[in-house]
Amino acid sequence: MGKNLQFAVLGGGSWATAIVKMLTENLDQVYWYMRNEDAINHIKTQKHNPNYLSSVEFNTDKLNLTSDINTAVKNADVLIFAIPSAFLNTELSQLSESLKDKIIFSAIKGIVPETGLIVGEHFHEKYDIPFENIGVITGPCHAEEVALERLSYLTIACADKHKAQLVAKNLSSEYIKTKISDDIIGTEYAAMLKNIYAIAAGIAHGLGYGDNFQSVLMSNAIREMKRFIKRVHHMKRNINNSAYLGDLLVTGYSVFSRNRMFGNMIGKGYTVKSAMMEMSMVAEGYYATKSAYILNEKHKKKSKTPILNAVYEVLYENKNAKTVFQKLTDKLD
Amino acid sequence: MGKNLQFAVLGGGSWATAIVKMLTENLDQVYWYMRNEDAINHIKTQKHNPNYLSSVEFNTDKLNLTSDINTAVKNADVLIFAIPSAFLNTELSQLSESLKDKIIFSAIKGIVPETGLIVGEHFHEKYDIPFENIGVITGPCHAEEVALERLSYLTIACADKHKAQLVAKNLSSEYIKTKISDDIIGTEYAAMLKNIYAIAAGIAHGLGYGDNFQSVLMSNAIREMKRFIKRVHHMKRNINNSAYLGDLLVTGYSVFSRNRMFGNMIGKGYTVKSAMMEMSMVAEGYYATKSAYILNEKHKKKSKTPILNAVYEVLYENKNAKTVFQKLTDKLD
Repeated sequence: MGKNLQFAVLGGGSWATAIVKMLTENLDQVYWYMRNEDAINHIKTQKHNPNYLSSVEFNTDKLNLTSDINTAVKNADVLIFAIPSAFLNTELSQLSESLKDKIIFSAIKGIVPETGLIVGEHFHEKYDIPFENIGVITGPCHAEEVALERLSYLTIACADKHKAQLVAKNLSSEYIKTKISDDIIGTEYAAMLKNIYAIAAGIAHGLGYGDNFQSVLMSNAIREMKRFIKRVHHMKRNINNSAYLGDLLVTGYSVFSRNRMFGNMIGKGYTVKSAMMEMSMVAEGYYATKSAYILNEKHKKKSKTPILNAVYEVLYENKNAKTVFQKLTDKLD
Repeated sequence: MGKNLQFAVLGGGSWATAIVKMLTENLDQVYWYMRNEDAINHIKTQKHNPNYLSSVEFNTDKLNLTSDINTAVKNADVLIFAIPSAFLNTELSQLSESLKDKIIFSAIKGIVPETGLIVGEHFHEKYDIPFENIGVITGPCHAEEVALERLSYLTIACADKHKAQLVAKNLSSEYIKTKISDDIIGTEYAAMLKNIYAIAAGIAHGLGYGDNFQSVLMSNAIREMKRFIKRVHHMKRNINNSAYLGDLLVTGYSVFSRNRMFGNMIGKGYTVKSAMMEMSMVAEGYYATKSAYILNEKHKKKSKTPILNAVYEVLYENKNAKTVFQKLTDKLD
């Protein structure tokens, strides 16, 4: 691969902002697409994203900001998507530039609601991108701690090891350590499933369960995640690696996680609808729950997923959270 | 086994108090030994342990309190030891009654400093108790949440399944679920090692590492724990079960853990000596670190234990925590 590959980050949220920060530690030029033109103007003049990680100061000489997704796609060789999965399809519908020959990395934790696919699969199936050109950037990583330059570890997964290394190298810095993996399907499902388990943790907390139960829940969640991913994509993986267990823990134990917060409100008695209205952002685990549940139901040999099923019943079958979780406690050990 | 086996709990701390509470949900009589006669008198008259979990009210008709360890040992068939491991040897030295034919369960998380053995091994080697009469009671379980009757899960391990079931049955209640296991060595080592990792988590926190790093540390810790225990006692076990991973998480993420607090002080710049003086209780992980380190060094094929080694260097080789942890970060992934 050539040395001067151009990188573009697509998205204007906190995780996109963190990734741009990481890249500008290494690259002289980064294309950065976001819809919000006010934010772009603010960044250009004030050097800060007004809406997310606003403490991060950018060297604006390095940024090619654009509100036109096609400009970013046209000029870059490596596209890093950090758009919430619920909006990805709408954003991609504006594409006139071809994605052919692009290297596409997903930093999105979720499922594309329109297709029920994880992002890598979505690009593969809908845009004919070969798997060796698709990668995943995964944590455990709160964007907020990147802003503070607190040491964080990323896993960069791609079937093509060289592309994983290329992206890893450009994200690495004093405060970012990277590891490569060839498990794009597993890491992406883990990133998606962890949001469901964070909702479960939130519901439990809202219902009054304590730390003892939380640790049992997480211990069961990682075993459930292992079974689920193994069914979807059987390969040798250590589920206790940071990209799986670490990512689960940083979200499941975070009081800042939107998914956990969403679950907490439901545990405290909000209806699903009112909890969603109360939160300004979509909790990605909400969609992930449905997709994961349906995916599991479709398998001839379902994997045992009591936590996923409990969250599904609460979110989509309008069942009482207290009753559902009481039953769930008998299925955990 | 006879139906009317007598139970005794030995110890006056919070975990002993919690276990007595659990047992009195099921049994009409529980022997309870503690050194402190003032506390015994307080419990007899006020129905509360003045020093630990003081909100718990006991039905004193059910308690046979004694400050003489021999009275408890003589009258009971099942002895549950919940004395801090650092004091166990001194307490046992007062024994004139024989431990022969007793069923001995350890609820102690640590290593007996005088022998460098985990508690089960200590009883086996020093008192000739056969392994089928030795068991382990392990969490994840903060005693404080038992006091609040918050749902908690215990694992009861014994080579003799029936004895595990007997103890499990008598600890179970509306708020305590139990599971049995035959891995007494593994669960006991896990309970010991988790305190070392909690010290590591505390040091990292004290040094300013954030939640992203903490999740990577825990993800590496469970892999390290798996390697360590496998070397000590090879058998089929799922390290992600609650008794191992759950127990690690409830301690590693607890801001109340004495071990984590101890580590935190060291991370913040206290010397080991001053951190120990500042805390009124001994952090069990302090002794565990030395024992585990020596045990690992003795093996011909050492297991890779970068976290244990880092904690050992800080606690016992007087090395600078910041430097040691900086090197550690390169060994994690």
